[in-house]
Amino acid sequence: MKLYNFTLAPNGRRVKIFLKFKNKEIPEQEINVREGEQFKEPFKSMNPFNCVPFLQLDDNTIISESISICRYLEEEHFPEPTLFGSTAKMRAYIDMWNRRLELDGYSPLGNAIRNKSSFFVNRVLAGTRNDIKQMPEIVERGVQMIELLFQRIDHHLEKNKFICGEQFTIADITGYSIFKSCELLKFEIPKTLSNTIRWRDTLYKQDCFDV
Amino acid sequence: MKLYNFTLAPNGRRVKIFLKFKNKEIPEQEINVREGEQFKEPFKSMNPFNCVPFLQLDDNTIISESISICRYLEEEHFPEPTLFGSTAKMRAYIDMWNRRLELDGYSPLGNAIRNKSSFFVNRVLAGTRNDIKQMPEIVERGVQMIELLFQRIDHHLEKNKFICGEQFTIADITGYSIFKSCELLKFEIPKTLSNTIRWRDTLYKQDCFDV
Repeated sequence: MKLYNFTLAPNGRRVKIFLKFKNKEIPEQEINVREGEQFKEPFKSMNPFNCVPFLQLDDNTIISESISICRYLEEEHFPEPTLFGSTAKMRAYIDMWNRRLELDGYSPLGNAIRNKSSFFVNRVLAGTRNDIKQMPEIVERGVQMIELLFQRIDHHLEKNKFICGEQFTIADITGYSIFKSCELLKFEIPKTLSNTIRWRDTLYKQDCFDV
Repeated sequence: MKLYNFTLAPNGRRVKIFLKFKNKEIPEQEINVREGEQFKEPFKSMNPFNCVPFLQLDDNTIISESISICRYLEEEHFPEPTLFGSTAKMRAYIDMWNRRLELDGYSPLGNAIRNKSSFFVNRVLAGTRNDIKQMPEIVERGVQMIELLFQRIDHHLEKNKFICGEQFTIADITGYSIFKSCELLKFEIPKTLSNTIRWRDTLYKQDCFDV
């Protein structure tokens, strides 16, 4: 198998963090997304969504979506230490938290960044090159959503070191990506949400994020 | 275990469709979301995100997020016929398609509906009751995103009966929910995207959607 990646992009980093946590390496090829290589062959035929990362299996099946790639790598190749959970109940619980963090935080923040930064003019939607315009309202909504998410999780984090408890999971990797997106947007976590800030500081000390 | 649900809501329907496909029933209790029951005890303590559906396990663990609930039910209780896949490769492939459909279609369309319909004034963000205002720009972006998604999947659907191939999967349930959201928004699929229309028509004939 071979991983096609752009390590500077947040989703590319999620797979790198996963591998660092597992202390594993797999064959990799960087695709220079800034130069638009993902729109050229052979890449555009491999992944018509024109996004990275994607994983090519030995039978040439392409798996894109960073979480789906990590799910596959854990299940098929690198089961321990688990990041997705070792029982059906824990897998569902971790999946729930990862979804909440993605749908209510990481994804709206990603949309906010793409609608704000001059870097993303003419590529507001991931994997496109067109004239869809940046909308400041989507930046505003992203900030509203992350404020709500942090309010919702702060009490839960009072009794939990990581988002799913004592165990570091794939949802913490999503959490880390949220905090890095907040930095990019210069969004400051309200000081009253002390458990959320403690979670961020705990995450920032983990070795696996040094990729 | 017990499922707390609001069957009229799209995510509530996803779990019902899953159970109908499996030909299974589990104990259920309807929460009247229109009346705001999810903000009252005991429900608000059970799920502080104030959303349905959620599943209470016998040890009182709460699993919310419709896909996480279905994932748990398939893995722990109702493995056959599979909707999430029977090998690590198929599970990753189905997960990838489900994520693409959710992140690029179902979620933006849901945001569009909540920012358009008078029914969602003062509850633009799921599980909230506040004065966040509806933004027409988010409706416009939802339509742009679904147009892009349909363009991207149409060629793939030329050779695939369902979104992951010959096998009906959880990603098709998400696809069905997308088409129902398009109906609500009165968004018509461009006639040139004949494979997408054929997929929709195939889905609309499946018995499991009659819930």
